[in-house]
Amino acid sequence: MSSPAVQRAAAFCEQFGLRCPVIMAPMAGSSPVALASAVASGGGMGACGVLAMSPEQIAGWAAGFRAAGGGPLQMNTWVPDPPPARDADHEQRVRDFLGRFGPAVPSAAGDAQPQNFDLQMEAMIEAEPAAISSIMGVFPEQWVRRLQRRGIRWLAVATTVREAQAAEAAGADAIVAQGMEAGGHRGAFRAERAESELVGLFALVPAIAEAVKVPVIATGGIGDPKTAAAALVLGASAVQVGTALLRCPEAKLNEHWAEALAQRPWPEDTAATRAFSGRLGRSLRTAYVQAAEAPDAPRPAPYPVQRGLTKPMQSAATSVDTVMAWAGQAARLAQDRPAKEVVEDIWSGAREILEPGCKL
Amino acid sequence: MSSPAVQRAAAFCEQFGLRCPVIMAPMAGSSPVALASAVASGGGMGACGVLAMSPEQIAGWAAGFRAAGGGPLQMNTWVPDPPPARDADHEQRVRDFLGRFGPAVPSAAGDAQPQNFDLQMEAMIEAEPAAISSIMGVFPEQWVRRLQRRGIRWLAVATTVREAQAAEAAGADAIVAQGMEAGGHRGAFRAERAESELVGLFALVPAIAEAVKVPVIATGGIGDPKTAAAALVLGASAVQVGTALLRCPEAKLNEHWAEALAQRPWPEDTAATRAFSGRLGRSLRTAYVQAAEAPDAPRPAPYPVQRGLTKPMQSAATSVDTVMAWAGQAARLAQDRPAKEVVEDIWSGAREILEPGCKL
Repeated sequence: MSSPAVQRAAAFCEQFGLRCPVIMAPMAGSSPVALASAVASGGGMGACGVLAMSPEQIAGWAAGFRAAGGGPLQMNTWVPDPPPARDADHEQRVRDFLGRFGPAVPSAAGDAQPQNFDLQMEAMIEAEPAAISSIMGVFPEQWVRRLQRRGIRWLAVATTVREAQAAEAAGADAIVAQGMEAGGHRGAFRAERAESELVGLFALVPAIAEAVKVPVIATGGIGDPKTAAAALVLGASAVQVGTALLRCPEAKLNEHWAEALAQRPWPEDTAATRAFSGRLGRSLRTAYVQAAEAPDAPRPAPYPVQRGLTKPMQSAATSVDTVMAWAGQAARLAQDRPAKEVVEDIWSGAREILEPGCKL
Repeated sequence: MSSPAVQRAAAFCEQFGLRCPVIMAPMAGSSPVALASAVASGGGMGACGVLAMSPEQIAGWAAGFRAAGGGPLQMNTWVPDPPPARDADHEQRVRDFLGRFGPAVPSAAGDAQPQNFDLQMEAMIEAEPAAISSIMGVFPEQWVRRLQRRGIRWLAVATTVREAQAAEAAGADAIVAQGMEAGGHRGAFRAERAESELVGLFALVPAIAEAVKVPVIATGGIGDPKTAAAALVLGASAVQVGTALLRCPEAKLNEHWAEALAQRPWPEDTAATRAFSGRLGRSLRTAYVQAAEAPDAPRPAPYPVQRGLTKPMQSAATSVDTVMAWAGQAARLAQDRPAKEVVEDIWSGAREILEPGCKL
């Protein structure tokens, strides 16, 4: 007799054309074609975080992915926030603070502009991935209709139950329930609520599964068979994995970041911080992150100003201490193994846990 | 073939004399004899949070529990923090703020003193529970030896892997892994780190299970078969349940608090706050909690000063909005059902999930 959790995952796989209910997280800046391709070849869904990419770069990435064999793919960008309020005096204090960790920060660094959202959406739709995902809000209605007309699924990241309900009402095909454990940016619809509405995956997945009818994809803290099995038991139909893939050879990670992950950090060695981009995200608790937490450190500027201001420090980094070293609370699960094997083993191991003694 | 998770839970039950690997959380102020007794009669472990109780009250509670039938029992108090630094000007601002929500706060309210830890430990040991649990640190060595000589198990609450390792090194018999989802006070060993080291249960349980050799009891976000099964899959040997028992008729909860739980709050309707006691704890996001989060609200005073200052407001409460309404992120799982049934169903349901089709 098959377990209900395994049946639910199998139905999701059939719906999305997967062999494994394992989805790569769309990590902007850390989604090389080779990694997405390896995940897809393992039966999961590859991913590309296009946040920092121009329309031409998006098209080029997609062409490379198809040339490498293609397969199920998710692409992702952020729903834009309103333009930030600028404060020259405050930015000066942030620049002075950052100058203690890297080169002097030119005042123009804060003028960084995000890519054009509409042009990115056009480029992603042209690339025809299986799914396009939202984070930091829901897609405007006209884009939801465009996705539907092209048969592209909309995966909506939610960090609370009410965000999940809003996304379902707007037409999302599945909810990505992002626990507070997740590495990288937290997808709170309202930036200012990101810290006060931190919800653990353990509470979030069953609550969202109860509140919506569409499938739930769990993310944050997942990277091995045990964590995948637990997420399916809690009500998820699939899991999304980010940090656990970063040591795979296909990830081609910054060497300082990869070495720090190889030290197998405990959950408390990560921190939710705005210090890199102005938007809350979870990274290793590096020297810079710790300094930025101190009461006398200047508050980070809003996104994308802070992102621009921290670029010089990151570009000059000679150790992990000033790298934007995103990592989730289960970072210790990242292994130096081919991504294809990681994906396959997560699912075969999870099945064995949920149906002990059953033949796979 | 039995699942490894079920085997691990069965071994724990044998070791602690339980029929169900379900432990009542020791909720100070919300551990009436009737609730602990009902949990024990269901095959789990009852609990008493003695934090606010005198030695005589502890002895009286234990006598009542034995008279009601007795059974497996955990008692708990806090490992003391250093005495708080007082600041009369700041306390005046807090008193003014609290005066907006309740009666005027006398200046002497901040002089509240905790019960004497050593006398509480004596009284708990005399009561001979199956286990005594620590929170906010590890027990001093002389008390560990006293517990060992009396054959009383030491359960140590840990909120990070390093806290769990410290507790095991000091002689703890089991670790209670407290996820950030948990209702009530968070057991961070160092009060000032409570916010920056919030770890989700999903990441905490497997990491602690990897780091220590003693059994791990998962708590925070657990209250039904699915959540219990997921915790066992993640590596726990047992689960501890708090908020999910608060609507049981035996809990005799404050009516405003019980009504608010009956609204089945979503995870984001709770907040981690120092506003009630000065120590971080998770409660419903009431009007007072929201007001205390505002940037212009005065920072809460340290424990136990803040606890004393908020007493007049709480005593005068006519709605949930000023009650210390502790609740975890899975508060919606609390049901108005006898605690014995809740405990029995959590375990029988979890077994059915982990061994589908197996006869119980």
